[in-house]
Amino acid sequence: MSFTQVEQISKTIDKISLANDNGGTENKVLVDLKNINGYNPGFQDSYPRESVPEHTRNRLEKYGIDLSRGYPERPENIPYYLDEGYAVRNRPNPNYVERGKNADPEKKALFSAAKEVKNLSTFIGTELVGVQLNDLNEKQLDELALLIAERVVVVFRNQDLSPQKHRDIGQYYGEVEVHPLVTHVPGLPGITTVWAEFNRGGPLLKYKKGLHQGWHTDLVHEFSPAGITHLHLDSIPVVGGDTSFASGYAAFDKLSKPLQQFLEGKFALNKSAHNYYNRDNILGGVEPIVRKHPLVITHPATGWKSLFVNRAHTIGIVGLEESESKVILEYLFDIYEKSLDNQVRISWQPTTSGLGTSVIWDNRISQHIAIPDYNDEITGKIRHANRVTSLGNVPEFDTNSKSQREALGLSI
Amino acid sequence: MSFTQVEQISKTIDKISLANDNGGTENKVLVDLKNINGYNPGFQDSYPRESVPEHTRNRLEKYGIDLSRGYPERPENIPYYLDEGYAVRNRPNPNYVERGKNADPEKKALFSAAKEVKNLSTFIGTELVGVQLNDLNEKQLDELALLIAERVVVVFRNQDLSPQKHRDIGQYYGEVEVHPLVTHVPGLPGITTVWAEFNRGGPLLKYKKGLHQGWHTDLVHEFSPAGITHLHLDSIPVVGGDTSFASGYAAFDKLSKPLQQFLEGKFALNKSAHNYYNRDNILGGVEPIVRKHPLVITHPATGWKSLFVNRAHTIGIVGLEESESKVILEYLFDIYEKSLDNQVRISWQPTTSGLGTSVIWDNRISQHIAIPDYNDEITGKIRHANRVTSLGNVPEFDTNSKSQREALGLSI
Amino acid sequence: MSFTQVEQISKTIDKISLANDNGGTENKVLVDLKNINGYNPGFQDSYPRESVPEHTRNRLEKYGIDLSRGYPERPENIPYYLDEGYAVRNRPNPNYVERGKNADPEKKALFSAAKEVKNLSTFIGTELVGVQLNDLNEKQLDELALLIAERVVVVFRNQDLSPQKHRDIGQYYGEVEVHPLVTHVPGLPGITTVWAEFNRGGPLLKYKKGLHQGWHTDLVHEFSPAGITHLHLDSIPVVGGDTSFASGYAAFDKLSKPLQQFLEGKFALNKSAHNYYNRDNILGGVEPIVRKHPLVITHPATGWKSLFVNRAHTIGIVGLEESESKVILEYLFDIYEKSLDNQVRISWQPTTSGLGTSVIWDNRISQHIAIPDYNDEITGKIRHANRVTSLGNVPEFDTNSKSQREALGLSI
Amino acid sequence: MSFTQVEQISKTIDKISLANDNGGTENKVLVDLKNINGYNPGFQDSYPRESVPEHTRNRLEKYGIDLSRGYPERPENIPYYLDEGYAVRNRPNPNYVERGKNADPEKKALFSAAKEVKNLSTFIGTELVGVQLNDLNEKQLDELALLIAERVVVVFRNQDLSPQKHRDIGQYYGEVEVHPLVTHVPGLPGITTVWAEFNRGGPLLKYKKGLHQGWHTDLVHEFSPAGITHLHLDSIPVVGGDTSFASGYAAFDKLSKPLQQFLEGKFALNKSAHNYYNRDNILGGVEPIVRKHPLVITHPATGWKSLFVNRAHTIGIVGLEESESKVILEYLFDIYEKSLDNQVRISWQPTTSGLGTSVIWDNRISQHIAIPDYNDEITGKIRHANRVTSLGNVPEFDTNSKSQREALGLSI
Repeated sequence: MSFTQVEQISKTIDKISLANDNGGTENKVLVDLKNINGYNPGFQDSYPRESVPEHTRNRLEKYGIDLSRGYPERPENIPYYLDEGYAVRNRPNPNYVERGKNADPEKKALFSAAKEVKNLSTFIGTELVGVQLNDLNEKQLDELALLIAERVVVVFRNQDLSPQKHRDIGQYYGEVEVHPLVTHVPGLPGITTVWAEFNRGGPLLKYKKGLHQGWHTDLVHEFSPAGITHLHLDSIPVVGGDTSFASGYAAFDKLSKPLQQFLEGKFALNKSAHNYYNRDNILGGVEPIVRKHPLVITHPATGWKSLFVNRAHTIGIVGLEESESKVILEYLFDIYEKSLDNQVRISWQPTTSGLGTSVIWDNRISQHIAIPDYNDEITGKIRHANRVTSLGNVPEFDTNSKSQREALGLSI
Repeated sequence: MSFTQVEQISKTIDKISLANDNGGTENKVLVDLKNINGYNPGFQDSYPRESVPEHTRNRLEKYGIDLSRGYPERPENIPYYLDEGYAVRNRPNPNYVERGKNADPEKKALFSAAKEVKNLSTFIGTELVGVQLNDLNEKQLDELALLIAERVVVVFRNQDLSPQKHRDIGQYYGEVEVHPLVTHVPGLPGITTVWAEFNRGGPLLKYKKGLHQGWHTDLVHEFSPAGITHLHLDSIPVVGGDTSFASGYAAFDKLSKPLQQFLEGKFALNKSAHNYYNRDNILGGVEPIVRKHPLVITHPATGWKSLFVNRAHTIGIVGLEESESKVILEYLFDIYEKSLDNQVRISWQPTTSGLGTSVIWDNRISQHIAIPDYNDEITGKIRHANRVTSLGNVPEFDTNSKSQREALGLSI
Repeated sequence: MSFTQVEQISKTIDKISLANDNGGTENKVLVDLKNINGYNPGFQDSYPRESVPEHTRNRLEKYGIDLSRGYPERPENIPYYLDEGYAVRNRPNPNYVERGKNADPEKKALFSAAKEVKNLSTFIGTELVGVQLNDLNEKQLDELALLIAERVVVVFRNQDLSPQKHRDIGQYYGEVEVHPLVTHVPGLPGITTVWAEFNRGGPLLKYKKGLHQGWHTDLVHEFSPAGITHLHLDSIPVVGGDTSFASGYAAFDKLSKPLQQFLEGKFALNKSAHNYYNRDNILGGVEPIVRKHPLVITHPATGWKSLFVNRAHTIGIVGLEESESKVILEYLFDIYEKSLDNQVRISWQPTTSGLGTSVIWDNRISQHIAIPDYNDEITGKIRHANRVTSLGNVPEFDTNSKSQREALGLSI
Repeated sequence: MSFTQVEQISKTIDKISLANDNGGTENKVLVDLKNINGYNPGFQDSYPRESVPEHTRNRLEKYGIDLSRGYPERPENIPYYLDEGYAVRNRPNPNYVERGKNADPEKKALFSAAKEVKNLSTFIGTELVGVQLNDLNEKQLDELALLIAERVVVVFRNQDLSPQKHRDIGQYYGEVEVHPLVTHVPGLPGITTVWAEFNRGGPLLKYKKGLHQGWHTDLVHEFSPAGITHLHLDSIPVVGGDTSFASGYAAFDKLSKPLQQFLEGKFALNKSAHNYYNRDNILGGVEPIVRKHPLVITHPATGWKSLFVNRAHTIGIVGLEESESKVILEYLFDIYEKSLDNQVRISWQPTTSGLGTSVIWDNRISQHIAIPDYNDEITGKIRHANRVTSLGNVPEFDTNSKSQREALGLSI
């Protein structure tokens, strides 16, 4: 039990009665799973239309979304049990195509549509100025997939993006993840809501003292974890709420050759953000889904090696003692989080007020963090985004692959 | 969830049926607390008489203990719920007398009974050679209490100790702790069983790779935590199974004056070794009892300051951020565990085979650890002990008290 | 000795001869301090005019700087000995005026000159769009001083800044630091050269694997450490070389009240980046200048408390044991370096090519780091800057001062 | 520079004069290496005969040692320069014979001479009761060598040991190390003095607050590092001054198989305890001798793998980044220092007053630490020992060798 109680499960259990039993009744308890919503935003009621930030409401309604029954929409058929959680997509992403592999390496179709191709740092992050995502064709989307694979994260400002196009682009890049617990745009499962005011239950984010870290990779507990991921902010505070991204290619290149070789071929356990009841041990407390993935993976489009761990979800290296695993993972997390030359910090500010900003990244080769200086007394509570996540391949390590610096012929 | 599963709760829940309810039955589950014994050695069946190690059996039966119905005995009326756990002795140790305060500071009655008074290290540990605990009178016990308060731990070898005298000495020093879950000598609650073969369920201790630490202080979750504690080994392996003790006085003296002042007057949260169900959140997993005690305490008999923390049970410093607390507690644990000049390592070997060894220490001013090189392929499984714990005062910090080195006029 | 030798002193000692002495000559060695330039860029030869990056050359020559004898210029009268190093400005900043205290809190004169006042994150960093530093009057400079004191760092792009104005603004804010070892613009001591190609001796920066950290505060070893500091980049790579800044106000606010109180009133030792010979122990290796400053300081203009430590230069907390100091400083460094809501990352890109970017910050209330993804195979070697540092007050802690969040009435 | 100055070099440089030179004299300094004795106990004057502890004096004079010119004796021809330090035994131990390989595995000759063979813990440490080292023949010494190789450390109490026999036993086990700087018994270089009162310059050991660690392995900077090492205490305080030993076999067995495989075949850098001037960089400060040895070695007599690192002297793993090396070595040091089941704590107390205690261990497969609770206000200053170190083989790793637990068929 954490003494700060930050993760304590909600206390709303509905104790109905004690049942009868031969050996006496005093030890039998009837519990109701339904009322336990501490970890289940899926249970949360939607907000009325009027509570939706203006720019968000305008965008969604412009594209025909019906907000009259509130926003966002809750998923149906919530899984309570761990086995139900595992059963969600317990198989490879079907018919997966790595779009970047089909792309023109020079990306002429995509780049010719841009007013400017602006690298945001030397090794990670590119902004495409003057491109509307709504307008991209499949050839351009293939090139964008390759650009993302190379630059990890790509920014598009001043977007007029429909939720339908948001979903369609995602679907083109792979099966769109539909979360069993998290809310979505009404009628469009897969377009997830990222909205602090709602997700945190209305109030401003509590200011956090102490050393809090939020670096993570999305959905690493999936059989086929998140690949290309598209977050669209349509309601953007004037200041605050940047997102930082870190490159897994560059994190891998920070390691010595012997440490790289030690990690290659090893597997890590990765847990889910949400928790479920263990049907065989209901009283044991909620548990996350845990899946095993290679610690070093090769991106199918670039062929570059990437370090596939993150502080939020990676809980152990298979085969090591727990104390060894802890020391080595802590080092790998710090390499990811403290090497600023491997990172880019992206402001969501549009240059044209009222339009949205899309950031598209590949979760297989990165970590990110939402910098928590929004949704407070200064910035207010307006920040709202939708996310569409395309699931990628089943993570693999290709022993013949190279690190980014090796492949680019850079000094090591 | 720990990926090593070392603390995973037992999976023997008895799911009887689903009950009926207006809103549908699918979310209601009837669970039976009784069958959950993962954390409850109280549920464990006793062993037959023949399985008890020979020396132990001889001693217990010599003093009239009936082993015909097995050994050890389980407690009755097991508490399942956290509130029941808290309710066990939720009040100060009644009529507590600090025996050491009444003692002759020169301890003439006690020392004159000893063949030799042998200090085992400069600052902690004394062996009294040639003394039988069975023979000590109250005047001598008072002096022993003071000796323990000063030297932290005192050793008596070649003991012929009756379980009854074991209990009586304990009762003289304070209310004897009767654990609601842990087994005891048949007919004598309060004489706790410390027996790896039984407590670990029979097999040899699994060899542990990795960095395992076992330093702890007993029963710090009590309202009045453990004071004078008397462990008697009556079945002793020829080699292995030493116990190391570390002095809280000396640990405090290792801190700089400013850090001492920072810690004085602060409180820490201390959890129990056993866990219980939270009646208001049964599905939240088991939880320990947690009690708040001063981080620096003053021993009533010596008036010396002692550092009252231990890695196994101290989970936070009140008022600090969790990240701050973690860093400072980790340092304090290491000061306790790594400062060998603050420690003594005690072998239980008797010089006369067949007799037992008693070690008596004060848990208020110490940590200890059983060194896990017994109960394996080399040593066999014979180690058995009984423990009697006298609860002490409610821990307090006296702002006018001194550190041990200050009080003794030693260089700082 | 570090096995990586990264800081090993240069090996160019000129051993002339052995001298004569009564007790035999074999142990006497004559050494020449002059040739030891490992730590002394002051000894470095300047580059020819043609090696200076084009934009830098154009700017400097436009404003009358004579580059015909090379660039940059070396200081004269290099100090070799520690006592000489200490003697440089071994007194408070003379006639210091805290300009921000005289400013209009609303900063109307300054803001009305700006096309836009753009906060770069909620708590740190502001860009003034459309302002030329060359044009600011004293009233505006006073307001700028206050803005810097509040926002920690202020950005001006598209600047046409003369070196003379650069120096004059610095002088207005306090005595301009003239470094005894570091090179400067010819004829203008105090306008320091920040030029990786030159400072690192010409080649590209070596790519660094491993966990390298570069967060620091400038010139904390001074009697009156650096206050307002103005870095002007006139030759800017197309990508790379961002600088991140972290707020000491916000770092202090991340600490719990008890830890804040523990640190307030304490002092830390802060060392210089350069090293000198100890006249009383020449063979003992070079040593830095070390000065004692409060660990928590109060900024004179805002009255807010700030955490005054940095990983590069703060070597200990006075009064603590070394092991305690290490643990606590490590935590404070991480709070500064890992709390992204306390940081801003600034790109130096101008929007008008050929013009420079000025970033002005207050070293008393911040740390910064140059992100090392410039000066490599991709970016080339063109990055060049000049820095003018105004020394501030002698750091003090005002027991009646408040933290930033307290003063602003924000939730804690 | 450490702000605590604990290791600051002595400040007794003899600055004679400035010499003449064409380019001006101001930068030339004549320094006298001879007077720099901070790191050179070799320069220390001996004490008069009367200051030698009584039991030590009696023993040495009984065996013909002349103390009339003081005690101990200083070495001649002190090396000042690093190259001179490296030149001391810069070659394998000549004609080395691993005595344990020739021994009867049952050790019948040795054991039959003992009253009792008493293992002190399950995996490390044996006491041979009733054996006089003075009396052992070569067959018994061979068996003792094997016993040490298996049990790491062996204790002999109540010894009447002559310094000559002390040296002869050492010489039988390998070339006796003669330290170029450390003092020895007059006329007997190689019989080193371990005497806190003298080595620390007379006063009581300063009490140390803070987290101080002293675990180390002797002489790992040698081409052929220390093998069998024999410390004989002839003046023993009544209490205090225990020595703890930790097994490198057992430390290796604590690592997971993958981590073992990562470390096998790698090399570490090991520095000397003493420092020397770098002839090519005299002003760079003193430097230790550094030698490269396998991180995992195989003991030639047992064929068991051992972890060959220690906190005091191992400064890096070859091929890793410094930050990686630091994290992994810190873990390995903690495994050695915190795993109490891998350790034994040995009291030097004789059972017959006036006789000495010998402890013989193998430095290739162990670390040890003198517990610093002697030489203080309570114990006085009488502790004195002599040490004879036999250099072993050049450390090697045999890829076909086994860990101790593997070889013994124990559970893993």
